[in-house]
Amino acid sequence: MTIRVAVLGAHTYWGAETMRLLSVHPQAVLQTLISDEKAGSRVGDIYPHLFAIAGRRLEALDGVDWSKIDCLIAALPHNQAHLAFAALPAGVKGIDLSADFRFSDVAFYEKYYGPHRAAALQREAVYGLSEIERDAIRGARIVGTPGCYPTAAQLPLVPLLAAGLIEADDIVIDAKSGVSGAGRAPDELHMYCEVAEGVHPYRVGHHRLAPEIELGLSKAAGKPVVVSFTPHMVPMNRGTLATMYVRMCEDVGVADLRAELQRVYGAEPFMRLLPEGMAPATRMVRGSNFCVMNVFAERAHRRAVLIAAIDNVVKGGAGQAVQNMNLMFGLAETTGLEQLPLFP
Amino acid sequence: MTIRVAVLGAHTYWGAETMRLLSVHPQAVLQTLISDEKAGSRVGDIYPHLFAIAGRRLEALDGVDWSKIDCLIAALPHNQAHLAFAALPAGVKGIDLSADFRFSDVAFYEKYYGPHRAAALQREAVYGLSEIERDAIRGARIVGTPGCYPTAAQLPLVPLLAAGLIEADDIVIDAKSGVSGAGRAPDELHMYCEVAEGVHPYRVGHHRLAPEIELGLSKAAGKPVVVSFTPHMVPMNRGTLATMYVRMCEDVGVADLRAELQRVYGAEPFMRLLPEGMAPATRMVRGSNFCVMNVFAERAHRRAVLIAAIDNVVKGGAGQAVQNMNLMFGLAETTGLEQLPLFP
Amino acid sequence: MTIRVAVLGAHTYWGAETMRLLSVHPQAVLQTLISDEKAGSRVGDIYPHLFAIAGRRLEALDGVDWSKIDCLIAALPHNQAHLAFAALPAGVKGIDLSADFRFSDVAFYEKYYGPHRAAALQREAVYGLSEIERDAIRGARIVGTPGCYPTAAQLPLVPLLAAGLIEADDIVIDAKSGVSGAGRAPDELHMYCEVAEGVHPYRVGHHRLAPEIELGLSKAAGKPVVVSFTPHMVPMNRGTLATMYVRMCEDVGVADLRAELQRVYGAEPFMRLLPEGMAPATRMVRGSNFCVMNVFAERAHRRAVLIAAIDNVVKGGAGQAVQNMNLMFGLAETTGLEQLPLFP
Amino acid sequence: MTIRVAVLGAHTYWGAETMRLLSVHPQAVLQTLISDEKAGSRVGDIYPHLFAIAGRRLEALDGVDWSKIDCLIAALPHNQAHLAFAALPAGVKGIDLSADFRFSDVAFYEKYYGPHRAAALQREAVYGLSEIERDAIRGARIVGTPGCYPTAAQLPLVPLLAAGLIEADDIVIDAKSGVSGAGRAPDELHMYCEVAEGVHPYRVGHHRLAPEIELGLSKAAGKPVVVSFTPHMVPMNRGTLATMYVRMCEDVGVADLRAELQRVYGAEPFMRLLPEGMAPATRMVRGSNFCVMNVFAERAHRRAVLIAAIDNVVKGGAGQAVQNMNLMFGLAETTGLEQLPLFP
Repeated sequence: MTIRVAVLGAHTYWGAETMRLLSVHPQAVLQTLISDEKAGSRVGDIYPHLFAIAGRRLEALDGVDWSKIDCLIAALPHNQAHLAFAALPAGVKGIDLSADFRFSDVAFYEKYYGPHRAAALQREAVYGLSEIERDAIRGARIVGTPGCYPTAAQLPLVPLLAAGLIEADDIVIDAKSGVSGAGRAPDELHMYCEVAEGVHPYRVGHHRLAPEIELGLSKAAGKPVVVSFTPHMVPMNRGTLATMYVRMCEDVGVADLRAELQRVYGAEPFMRLLPEGMAPATRMVRGSNFCVMNVFAERAHRRAVLIAAIDNVVKGGAGQAVQNMNLMFGLAETTGLEQLPLFP
Repeated sequence: MTIRVAVLGAHTYWGAETMRLLSVHPQAVLQTLISDEKAGSRVGDIYPHLFAIAGRRLEALDGVDWSKIDCLIAALPHNQAHLAFAALPAGVKGIDLSADFRFSDVAFYEKYYGPHRAAALQREAVYGLSEIERDAIRGARIVGTPGCYPTAAQLPLVPLLAAGLIEADDIVIDAKSGVSGAGRAPDELHMYCEVAEGVHPYRVGHHRLAPEIELGLSKAAGKPVVVSFTPHMVPMNRGTLATMYVRMCEDVGVADLRAELQRVYGAEPFMRLLPEGMAPATRMVRGSNFCVMNVFAERAHRRAVLIAAIDNVVKGGAGQAVQNMNLMFGLAETTGLEQLPLFP
Repeated sequence: MTIRVAVLGAHTYWGAETMRLLSVHPQAVLQTLISDEKAGSRVGDIYPHLFAIAGRRLEALDGVDWSKIDCLIAALPHNQAHLAFAALPAGVKGIDLSADFRFSDVAFYEKYYGPHRAAALQREAVYGLSEIERDAIRGARIVGTPGCYPTAAQLPLVPLLAAGLIEADDIVIDAKSGVSGAGRAPDELHMYCEVAEGVHPYRVGHHRLAPEIELGLSKAAGKPVVVSFTPHMVPMNRGTLATMYVRMCEDVGVADLRAELQRVYGAEPFMRLLPEGMAPATRMVRGSNFCVMNVFAERAHRRAVLIAAIDNVVKGGAGQAVQNMNLMFGLAETTGLEQLPLFP
Repeated sequence: MTIRVAVLGAHTYWGAETMRLLSVHPQAVLQTLISDEKAGSRVGDIYPHLFAIAGRRLEALDGVDWSKIDCLIAALPHNQAHLAFAALPAGVKGIDLSADFRFSDVAFYEKYYGPHRAAALQREAVYGLSEIERDAIRGARIVGTPGCYPTAAQLPLVPLLAAGLIEADDIVIDAKSGVSGAGRAPDELHMYCEVAEGVHPYRVGHHRLAPEIELGLSKAAGKPVVVSFTPHMVPMNRGTLATMYVRMCEDVGVADLRAELQRVYGAEPFMRLLPEGMAPATRMVRGSNFCVMNVFAERAHRRAVLIAAIDNVVKGGAGQAVQNMNLMFGLAETTGLEQLPLFP
């Protein structure tokens, strides 16, 4: 089987990464590269590193022949792909990288992202956190893939909350991320000189990814979870690190957390619980779909520290989208994603 | 008055920064530059940027003529300056940048740093957190200056604990620091390729600066404080950012925390409580003795986020040492430290 | 004497650096901070690191009371300050950081930068390469300060051409610069992810600073000089390094080049000919007005390599402007510029 | 066919990259991982990113069972693999990444690198610049693969010299490279703080790679070539950029250079002559075996600028070694090397 893929938003970093991954995917073909912003441009003009498809041209959305497409992967910022999804023929599956199809609750979406112009589709949309929602993703037509912070935070927290090993009401998520998460559209905040040689938090106390994380954690815990979440900008291109301070339930120890994570993720192809004492680093997963994690005892009473690292553009973006595509089309989940990380 | 200063460990980053600051200090003179490791070298050979003293030579410790010295500033790593301090003539004041003279409790020191060979001096040593221990520093002969993490964490936490505004038993300190804090001695961990383009935590759950921080917080709170503390390495030369998650006491709000910090630090020359909503960044203080801080409301019940940023080499090192020297010699506290940060 | 300075373009990096330097200048006062783009903003809102003047407000150009100004320093991009200069009262001296007043030949300017709306002023404008044009600058009312590449390239080349030690027709200038030279206005080319972790040349063969450099070299050589010039973007905030490949005249050796540079610059406060064999690095001058240089023998016949490094924002920008101001107002040339570089 | 590979020096960056590439090579198997320095360690302990082989252990050289090895790839620094090669059974092919087998002239080697303890092997060693020496490599048993600077410089220069389009006696190579080229062994020069936020040249006028480059260029030109060569250290992990200033022969234009490069490299799988006017950047090739190049007209008489960029760890290291292995074993040259670069 060959999946004919259309990439919507081929001019974004997410789009470029989707094209990079799919250009070596043995069972997918980059059928159509869509970008209203850069329609007519050669791929090589905007992303010279994509040698294999340098001569291909980006097309406008309204000229796409959907009869030749099996799967749409949308890599646009929030709020820009509603109509494209709404107009999708029934036979075409859709995977979105923005927040647009992550929530079955339309009111929830609109509270944080504004009016939804394809609200009806929300009902059939599935949350694309691959390891957690695998079964639902397999049968889905529309999948909303979570981004860097929700992926890095939920992967370790969900199983521990589901197993009742950690308290639901005392979770601090201190997250650090590279600059590519902000996309390629120019703004002062992400200019080189504003980011290099320093670190800073942003949107402290009111980042809209916190409610998304809480949604997944609440589902796992079976009760409402409120988290403390502070994202920080780190001078690096790629990578998300989540340092999570949790309170273990009575009579639970760090060894129990490790055992549960090992039980849940031990056979997962992209998940790696590191050897005891080894700290996750974003360098370990750069350019790959892997997630590394570990658990540490803390000095404070019943406190443990959970740490997870992913590449925000791959596992927190295009890689997880491809992983979901593999699931939706019945392929082996790792197809096209076997590349090891790049270090140094 | 002119203070004749000897710098011990002139070959370290801390030593170089001490020389940089003192070379423009109007009431101090760099009398003697000591380095057993690099004795005989010209300053310009090891630190070409110190143009003003490029031709000066480093000397071995045992040849120093202490009759010409008023103040020793030691910039050596932990455990290497004990004997130099023990041999200090009574008329010479000493300021140490390592952990060697930060604790009046010798057993505490030896638990974390090994045998102390100048234990008697500990009794008269004063903890050099300038804004908090100002009065004691003024009368001290020996001062142990705290480094990057203890300074960035204690400056905001101490007044709030002392005022009874935050709970003493629920403090998370997630700290991020640049690479210069590790010093100039070569090791694999701090090679360019091991640090660039990534972020990682280290010594999770057992960093020996956690007990030092707890000591100061316990004194402020009037009861034992245990913190959760995770340091992270960020690809930047300078800067320490501490993101602290605290639990406010009943009926206390973020405005109360702000008001207290404003009351305590409003007139301090190096402390800056930022306008409401503005997040501290290490870029704001690079190369300077300033500390910027702010307080944020969080989603979780009674949780607030305190954030502080300093330059680890200046306010978390040589700058605070000079600030202490100014206090010990009766100078205006800001003498020689008025330089604004360097950005970008 | 106190010079009352107005900074035009206070919102640019050049403007911020001018304010940083002047805030500790003992004989200048920041009288008026002008920015049409950010009129009404507090300095602290746009440049939080400028603590000393954080509460000051930026003003629109047309409300400035010039009777209270002695000196205008313009830090706007090329082509934006013509009218401000044209309207300057006779008693106010003007220093420009852009290319607008670097050329007495208006046609030359217009060829590369477009129409000049204050062409009459060009006649009295002096080229502000301080060490070379010192005498003319002292008597000037309008000075056009050269930027990073022309400063780093001309400082070593001009004396050697003037002394007839190197061939005028075989000069290669391979230059590397940090990102701050591009300014703060957002564009894709200077976003963090487009610059970090890589190096690239730009405007190869047709950068408009090449003719400016040739102008100065031709004047020194007494005949037309054409150079090969390739600028490169390096992932760093500050710094310009020029690596220059020259052909020595018959019977001239590297020692002769060194001797001439030593003769010309040996007593200069900001110029440093490094010890034989020590390679200049931008790290040596970061944040300062210094220029380091050196000469090296090469394998090829009569070839020598000249290398110079400056901080592009200081010696290649605001620092040289202040140096020129000092000259124009009869102050000691180093006033306010004694700060040593920041390393690491 | 499956090639059973032993990697010697598995603890180096070159070794790690060789393992990364071979772990997805469809016709090679990582039979034995050799490291006397780290014998007994798990791969995951020293290179956690190599998930696919994390549990494999490094072995000491003297225990290797060569009967199970078809090919040795040595990734040790210069001068450390002589005896391993000398002891290689006749049926095992050897590829070296250091300078040890790049020169058939032993005296030449010993002049720059010291005594050669496997001099006899030099006679059958072939220079592993794949695109240039392809035919000889196919029949070779021992190949010495060139590193970053010789690869980036020779690939564009060799065909132009061979075609007589550029002068042999006027070549300037200004090269810039990332820090990984210096390897993982700790030294002060390559510590993070010594490299970040700056750029500097090193070994100006006497780098031992200059003679290696000249050897290849002389062979192409048919007469002795002497180059001017200055390497620079850039704050980035990977990448080598060579900016080359050449003098075109009479009646030759930039279009002729382009045409010749297009003719020679147009069908090469890893070579890319960029569209006219597009400047090569190391970001375009990060993590890949590609080489991008371009030619530019310059202002100076008959001067042209040739620019080439490669990833120093791949095309200037492990990738080219694998490319050579493919040639030596009769595989398609691109086997296992199809991965596209990683950007951002």
